[in-house]
Amino acid sequence: MRAADIIIKKRGTGKIKGQQLTKEEIDFIVKGYVDGTIPDYQMSALLMAIYFNGMTFEETGALTNSMLHSGDVIELHGKQYEDMGLHGPFVDKHSTGGVGDKISLPLAPIVASCGVQIPMMSGRGLGHTGGTLDKLEAIEGYHVGLTPDEFRKLIAKTGYAMTGQTKEIVPADRLMYALRDVTGTVESIPLITSSILSKKVAEGSDALVFDVKCGSGAFMKSPEDAENLATFLVKTAQAMGKQAVALITRMDTPLGYKTGNYLEIEETLECLQGKGPEDVMELTYNLGSHMLVLGKKSANFEEGIKLCKEAVSSGKALKTFLENVKDQGGDPEKLLAGQNKRRSKFHMEIKAKQDGYILIDAYKTGIACINLGVGRNKTTDIVSPDAGIIFAHRQDDFVKKGEKIMDVYAKDAVSLMTGSASLEKALEYQSEKIKKTPLIYKEIK
Amino acid sequence: MRAADIIIKKRGTGKIKGQQLTKEEIDFIVKGYVDGTIPDYQMSALLMAIYFNGMTFEETGALTNSMLHSGDVIELHGKQYEDMGLHGPFVDKHSTGGVGDKISLPLAPIVASCGVQIPMMSGRGLGHTGGTLDKLEAIEGYHVGLTPDEFRKLIAKTGYAMTGQTKEIVPADRLMYALRDVTGTVESIPLITSSILSKKVAEGSDALVFDVKCGSGAFMKSPEDAENLATFLVKTAQAMGKQAVALITRMDTPLGYKTGNYLEIEETLECLQGKGPEDVMELTYNLGSHMLVLGKKSANFEEGIKLCKEAVSSGKALKTFLENVKDQGGDPEKLLAGQNKRRSKFHMEIKAKQDGYILIDAYKTGIACINLGVGRNKTTDIVSPDAGIIFAHRQDDFVKKGEKIMDVYAKDAVSLMTGSASLEKALEYQSEKIKKTPLIYKEIK
Repeated sequence: MRAADIIIKKRGTGKIKGQQLTKEEIDFIVKGYVDGTIPDYQMSALLMAIYFNGMTFEETGALTNSMLHSGDVIELHGKQYEDMGLHGPFVDKHSTGGVGDKISLPLAPIVASCGVQIPMMSGRGLGHTGGTLDKLEAIEGYHVGLTPDEFRKLIAKTGYAMTGQTKEIVPADRLMYALRDVTGTVESIPLITSSILSKKVAEGSDALVFDVKCGSGAFMKSPEDAENLATFLVKTAQAMGKQAVALITRMDTPLGYKTGNYLEIEETLECLQGKGPEDVMELTYNLGSHMLVLGKKSANFEEGIKLCKEAVSSGKALKTFLENVKDQGGDPEKLLAGQNKRRSKFHMEIKAKQDGYILIDAYKTGIACINLGVGRNKTTDIVSPDAGIIFAHRQDDFVKKGEKIMDVYAKDAVSLMTGSASLEKALEYQSEKIKKTPLIYKEIK
Repeated sequence: MRAADIIIKKRGTGKIKGQQLTKEEIDFIVKGYVDGTIPDYQMSALLMAIYFNGMTFEETGALTNSMLHSGDVIELHGKQYEDMGLHGPFVDKHSTGGVGDKISLPLAPIVASCGVQIPMMSGRGLGHTGGTLDKLEAIEGYHVGLTPDEFRKLIAKTGYAMTGQTKEIVPADRLMYALRDVTGTVESIPLITSSILSKKVAEGSDALVFDVKCGSGAFMKSPEDAENLATFLVKTAQAMGKQAVALITRMDTPLGYKTGNYLEIEETLECLQGKGPEDVMELTYNLGSHMLVLGKKSANFEEGIKLCKEAVSSGKALKTFLENVKDQGGDPEKLLAGQNKRRSKFHMEIKAKQDGYILIDAYKTGIACINLGVGRNKTTDIVSPDAGIIFAHRQDDFVKKGEKIMDVYAKDAVSLMTGSASLEKALEYQSEKIKKTPLIYKEIK
């Protein structure tokens, strides 16, 4: 087998279209790339050929599988882990990323408190989208670098644990993603699918719920692309023997009333205290219900919704959340005591410039958040826990000129100036109310 | 400017097709690649995006120009060179390569003896196609590594000189070609065009005649691809201020009766002695006439043909050839004395297995020639001067079972066995004579 021949096979020749690669060819490429026998320049040429010619579900499954086995796979099943209290089915949720998307934070304790065990491995923010790990680290003392054994123990104890991807998990994805990032090969549905899925399968999940975001603040801007990705994720996961459901959800404006690392922890507390914003709760309950069904803790979707709501109203979800905070090094009492008090001193208000129905663009808000200090442009940037936005009004609200739209918090004075200036650009005023699109477009099973 | 953005621009995004790159962007890429600031993996991703999305004539011209200026350009015009005897216009011919394609060898002395100065920079054989330099080196003592100054002096003296591409000429092409070879990005018309043209322009030519081969033994298998390449070569050369003509010619069966390094030198002598095969002479006269017109030594095509024929019949082309042999280190008398005598001792005949009209496939013959020792699989292989084939019959001839089709010569006993076995596979017997396709399909100006 020669890498050049595999590239040409995928690329096609003259009138012969690119062909489907075999499992063996894909494995040869991934193994060779990780062990260094296949150089970057052959991999990037192949990735570009895949960008143009795509991959079938079968190929995408084979790619995911090869990537998955390039490193450690966390085992959660087996006698020794059963004795530890792990029972499965293990269910996780993955979001393709958005602005103000803190859904994982209330979702995990709600679902865990209903008895589903959740091995949650999350990422950091990059560009305009936030990351769950950055938000968790805004809780003083919270540490996200669990060893596989700590991870297992905490899942068994509290029902869920939150950790980051270690270097040993799917090294092929780390290498391939870094290469894709600089070679214009990020935006390929099968490559995105295998990158997401290989990590999710490696963390030990049996079933997966995907939140595929769609809109200006999402990776997928159009409903067609989002549906295509959702279909790839679900079909490929199923081909790998995992149960899977995907929801395609709106990401044209930030989710919830609070955006920022600590501020989203605060909104999570509100959600679990029964005071969560409508959109955040709707999405959380929907995703949660699917997780309960996949985790065999609910017979059907309607019952799942009911169970999720009860988990909040009874206070058991909040209790589970605070237990996890303690498990992972935080101080629950301090956290509760700081609620609505902990604020950056670099603060200003943004007021309406005119009367009108407002539009708040998710992408532009996300970019402004980088300026405020919430997010990062490159992986080595350090984020500020306290920078962020509290919305007094949200998209579709009618505002009078001079009325406060949001409170803006930044990591320092300069960030406050640049961040606020760019936030102004995220706002539009309309004379008529536009028809709201549904929060959940579609479900793919 | 960032390489990743240029890759994405060429690649396209979602529904936006790949866009035309600017001269500045192309120059940034080529310069960066040669100086090492743009790594192989970005270049190969861009090359693959170019494979899929193509390039306009304008982009191809810009790419050729950037590549051209990545190294030394041989200057032939100017007072100092006029004093040396160089007058121009300088005209060269380039063939896209075939089997038995020795046309450059009789062509250069015919055209030079009519007064056109020819700066001919040739290549070596690779894969199934032969190379002019390998053939010339079959002449004992002949050296092809001329310095630019020796090259100029010999052109001024004899009308032409034959040399190889030095390391200093178009280093961008050397680097890019090596990368394309291993990343499945060879078969791109604009990339092939810029590779050919940058070298041809760098050697100092004012006008170019292209022999774009088409058929099994050619790089371009279909007439459409060949026409596409011919058009790109001519239009891009013209956009760069060079006059250009391309002929699309048949390469489904080997040219002439002799294939092999020394054997093609011998057939060149026959051509110049007035005993050349019909196909070789037809092609040589056609290409030669175009060169004479571009070189302003003939008013029109018909006169050009006449002048070429006279150059042969008068013996002045042969004289020029032998002078060049002497100029570049060979011994003309020894060469003539060896004619029809110098043969490898590893010899066998291939005889017809049945009655029929024979087909001799160019590609399969070329591959068999590698086995015989004529050609090379990789650039570091050493070729044998004396291996090759003398055809007793050629494609379309009727043969009786047991009749000799060819004499096969190899570099050693093993090569003789493997080469002959693969030559058998290049033969087909048909019960009816098939309609011959014309040698010259089309002219592109």
